[in-house]
Amino acid sequence: MFPQEEFLTRYLALQSVSLHADNQIQETAEFLRQHFEQIGAQNVQILTTKVTNPAVYAEIPAQVPSTVTVLFYNHYDVQPAEPLDLWESDPFTLTQKDGVLYGRGINDDKGELAARLAAIQDLRDAGQLPVNVKFLIEGAEEQGSPNLPVLLDQYRDLLAADFCIWESGGKDESGKMKVSLGVKGGVAFQLDVRNADHDLHSSLAAITVNPAWRLVQALATLKDANDEITIPGFLEEITPLTATQKQIVADSEFDYDAYAQNVGLTHAATVADPAAALVAKPSLTINGLSSGYEGPGTGKMVLPHAASAKLDLRIVPGQTVAHTVALVRAALDANGYQDIVLSKVLGEPPFRSDPDHPLVQTALATAKQAYPEGVAVALNSAGSGPMPYFYAINHAPIISVGVANANSAAHGPNENVVLADYMQFITYLKLLLPALAAK
Amino acid sequence: MFPQEEFLTRYLALQSVSLHADNQIQETAEFLRQHFEQIGAQNVQILTTKVTNPAVYAEIPAQVPSTVTVLFYNHYDVQPAEPLDLWESDPFTLTQKDGVLYGRGINDDKGELAARLAAIQDLRDAGQLPVNVKFLIEGAEEQGSPNLPVLLDQYRDLLAADFCIWESGGKDESGKMKVSLGVKGGVAFQLDVRNADHDLHSSLAAITVNPAWRLVQALATLKDANDEITIPGFLEEITPLTATQKQIVADSEFDYDAYAQNVGLTHAATVADPAAALVAKPSLTINGLSSGYEGPGTGKMVLPHAASAKLDLRIVPGQTVAHTVALVRAALDANGYQDIVLSKVLGEPPFRSDPDHPLVQTALATAKQAYPEGVAVALNSAGSGPMPYFYAINHAPIISVGVANANSAAHGPNENVVLADYMQFITYLKLLLPALAAK
Repeated sequence: MFPQEEFLTRYLALQSVSLHADNQIQETAEFLRQHFEQIGAQNVQILTTKVTNPAVYAEIPAQVPSTVTVLFYNHYDVQPAEPLDLWESDPFTLTQKDGVLYGRGINDDKGELAARLAAIQDLRDAGQLPVNVKFLIEGAEEQGSPNLPVLLDQYRDLLAADFCIWESGGKDESGKMKVSLGVKGGVAFQLDVRNADHDLHSSLAAITVNPAWRLVQALATLKDANDEITIPGFLEEITPLTATQKQIVADSEFDYDAYAQNVGLTHAATVADPAAALVAKPSLTINGLSSGYEGPGTGKMVLPHAASAKLDLRIVPGQTVAHTVALVRAALDANGYQDIVLSKVLGEPPFRSDPDHPLVQTALATAKQAYPEGVAVALNSAGSGPMPYFYAINHAPIISVGVANANSAAHGPNENVVLADYMQFITYLKLLLPALAAK
Repeated sequence: MFPQEEFLTRYLALQSVSLHADNQIQETAEFLRQHFEQIGAQNVQILTTKVTNPAVYAEIPAQVPSTVTVLFYNHYDVQPAEPLDLWESDPFTLTQKDGVLYGRGINDDKGELAARLAAIQDLRDAGQLPVNVKFLIEGAEEQGSPNLPVLLDQYRDLLAADFCIWESGGKDESGKMKVSLGVKGGVAFQLDVRNADHDLHSSLAAITVNPAWRLVQALATLKDANDEITIPGFLEEITPLTATQKQIVADSEFDYDAYAQNVGLTHAATVADPAAALVAKPSLTINGLSSGYEGPGTGKMVLPHAASAKLDLRIVPGQTVAHTVALVRAALDANGYQDIVLSKVLGEPPFRSDPDHPLVQTALATAKQAYPEGVAVALNSAGSGPMPYFYAINHAPIISVGVANANSAAHGPNENVVLADYMQFITYLKLLLPALAAK
């Protein structure tokens, strides 16, 4: 039996697939509520908002006098297990084989919660839980956490904390422990160009503005031939890195060749330092293009009456969702594309915990103790997420650490966690919590 | 009874919809064969190739000694009549109302053949048919005439002629008779860009070549911001217009505002002289764009692994299908886009009859007699078609003239021809054929 094996067996068996209509979301929330009651947690609650699935909240008070509160963020919902035929074991049965644990959610994010509970249980069993612990375990992360901003605002007082331990993270390809201190912001929007009531015959092209061409030419003004963003003012708003942050970026590594081979890239990297670009360079991505005739064969000599592009921006601290979109709008206008409609704006801001914050330094120093194979610190992940909303309510620094390995297949078949990594993560938390308490 | 009313009634009733699997193509070809036999035509044949529907061929020899042979090109297939509920009469029943004839194909192209037969019958009844007449009536024009190049090559000797009267044409919005002397060429092709085996997460955008961006940037090098084609060498190959051709272009008119209002354009014309651009300016049209996520909502933060554009070129004499495509390829290569795949090339060459050719001059002069309301001559239509293949086999000049009016709705519901236009067209042909014989 490994720590929390019984809990994890029951937790994994619950099909809390938030993207499926026929799921066990309610049962899983109730299971967690009962479990926290059982282990003697306090103030256990199911938190609801008007949007989507409930979250589970629980407190475990320090066993020694402590002024430090640590908030753990996890989620109990999981991705669908399909395609089922690619699994080598039942996805909803915890399976152990050759030192590896398998099951849907074993990494993302049920196994992570189990390891956290194991560390806390060990400390409590020794009568030494050194910090006040809070858990917020939401049920719609795999839906994009649509409830989280509302929920955080609604339960702002309940969620007060000095330090926040985020979900996800683990070991990278080289076996180093990744600790991420933030997220890039993400901004989605759409551009639409129209002319005429319906598609026309392309024999009229010599005298008619083609929305597809206009979209292409407008987009081309937003980047240069080297793929660099040319939106006026866009790059000027970026907050310069501190000395510590610069050092973290300089120390970071990314094996572009391994990545390229893994996903089948045929084009060379666009930047000299991919590791730095991933954390610190904003990007403007065309997610989709759509116009005119897209079926088989030739283009049917059609002159489209509409064209649209879906795009996203990844932004970094200093940039905001609203202002970067305004700069895109201004760039289009300045280039004569006032007619292009910009709509469907959705975004999450960027966020980085201050690496000079004493609790962050403690977390990194402790990680180096627990992970002699090395620690890879990231200023922020390349992706986006609701981390900034947590920071907004209590200004506590946030780090992402977890039990993954480079082949954990978080959303894929045969999702897995190496048992030794699970145990090492428990050890790390048992060093981390007392260290945080000592600050 | 109007001329050929009985023939036209039976011809229109045959549902020769070449785009429908359940059609009366074979019956219609057989009906025409029998009709030509009945009226005493010679060498009547059903011509077949390995591709698609048969064509009907017939000869009617001159009744006076003549060295001039006129070839009429028509087609017996029609567009589908759907949507049927928008028709005010049965589409396959010749219907006459307030001086207008209605029915599927009454304009395109069964009514046109009937008027031509009526003119020839009148001349024959008077014992004065002054030229040798040949008919080629194909059965797959609405499929894009896939059989025609092969058929023309196979029956090259049979189709020898001195002058060719093409299908389509009629009166424009101002009531002038349009006479078109050619076609623009049309070239279709596709561009494809790829990277990676599957779509990636857009958090990787800062370090990964995005095929959608690459396609946009490559396309943007083919035109400038004023929508002018910038492909090196492309415009240099155009054959300069002769003095006569320049005068025809200068005399041509196009009511851009009426066109814009009719199809709902919201962008101003891109050229100062739309009438000239329509006949003499090449165009490069994006027919379709496709990449990444094109569904509802935001772009799902996807980094597409593939992007494609379907395009067409409309080209003018001096330019060829193969060489214009080669210039596109060369422009992409010169701009560093060797990786972009150019494929699915299909094309028809451009063609213009020489307006100084004596038989063309005769045709235009006769048109001015028959149409006192005015004649609008076009160097070529803005569209493309198989006309050049006819020219290639016998080097006879070709003109397009017909029975349409500006609201004939050739491919739409309530397709119609004004009976007075039908009669006027018969009169025109009865002037034209003797005039051609006199040259």
